[in-house]
Amino acid sequence: MSMTLPLVRLIEAFQKLPGVGPKSAQRLAFHVLKQSSDDVGQFAEILKEAKAQIRECPECFNLSGQSPCEICRNKSRDANTLCVVAEPSDIFALERTGEFRGLYHVLHGLISPLHGIQPEDLKIRPLLARLGEANPIREIILALPPSIEGDTTSLYLSRIIQPLGISLTRIAFGLPVGGDLDYADNLTISRALAGRVPIS
Amino acid sequence: MSMTLPLVRLIEAFQKLPGVGPKSAQRLAFHVLKQSSDDVGQFAEILKEAKAQIRECPECFNLSGQSPCEICRNKSRDANTLCVVAEPSDIFALERTGEFRGLYHVLHGLISPLHGIQPEDLKIRPLLARLGEANPIREIILALPPSIEGDTTSLYLSRIIQPLGISLTRIAFGLPVGGDLDYADNLTISRALAGRVPIS
Repeated sequence: MSMTLPLVRLIEAFQKLPGVGPKSAQRLAFHVLKQSSDDVGQFAEILKEAKAQIRECPECFNLSGQSPCEICRNKSRDANTLCVVAEPSDIFALERTGEFRGLYHVLHGLISPLHGIQPEDLKIRPLLARLGEANPIREIILALPPSIEGDTTSLYLSRIIQPLGISLTRIAFGLPVGGDLDYADNLTISRALAGRVPIS
Repeated sequence: MSMTLPLVRLIEAFQKLPGVGPKSAQRLAFHVLKQSSDDVGQFAEILKEAKAQIRECPECFNLSGQSPCEICRNKSRDANTLCVVAEPSDIFALERTGEFRGLYHVLHGLISPLHGIQPEDLKIRPLLARLGEANPIREIILALPPSIEGDTTSLYLSRIIQPLGISLTRIAFGLPVGGDLDYADNLTISRALAGRVPIS
């Protein structure tokens, strides 16, 4: 096909993004070419700036332009409760609800022997460091996904944390709100049954 | 939500792209942050370079890094046949088939009185200039979409071109290959009926 080289490169660059196929990449490329040079330059700057400025928070390993991150430095948050998540994006999902007012700890992955990811590859050692002597943490909530890797990691963490005398819970797995029993997969229904709670 | 500013900016920048909603934008942003600084810098460069280098071809108004574009300067293409399209992306769709060996002309839009787009806003005057005295063009194929705007533009062009004694056709509209009559919309079926051809 007689496609001009800078355009081929642009389409290929977009195609490397997750969830962007050949047709979407082409549409995105043409969209960029319709923008003003200033807009495209600004987009390019935002990309480079974000990459240059955003670092892992030294306390919770959330991604932030500040160190420590906005959540860790917020004195109005409850320092007694710690929510453990797999990825920084999970923090955003939880923050959207506005329900949780404690602090976070990002593992940056889940234990997966199949993919060669061992506990020492995750931010588990820094998590234990946060639970040391003078720590104010009274409850840890594991908000890891209901998968083999999530369950393995939850089990591993519970074995380490339980002897420390800290209250340990995990988020509930079950039927999503608005979900239909008919359309739910077997594993979700199994989890919903296993996690049944008494009606008070 | 306690989201760090450079990340908010990055997510907002992605959300401005067509077909990218809030969740996709967030996923794309986190993907970028997982890349190396070099990779992100390269992506930013490709964006700026493409925008800086790609211009409208002065002959056919296709987008290209060369002037005239790769298709116009290709001597092996049939200069007697001209295919008129609405957008540069339509050229790529046609080129993918490898069926058409002539030249193109991009209108950069369609006549749409409803949106205030008049014939003079499109590349119709340069099209007529290409059909002047010494022109080698013997056939014009209108490859405009089967919509009110596409039909209006086709009609407008046909009124101008027909008096010039140039053979004028338009691409066929009808049932797509692999398409089911059952699933086709009414307009497509109407067009397929109207465009019926004798069985030879």
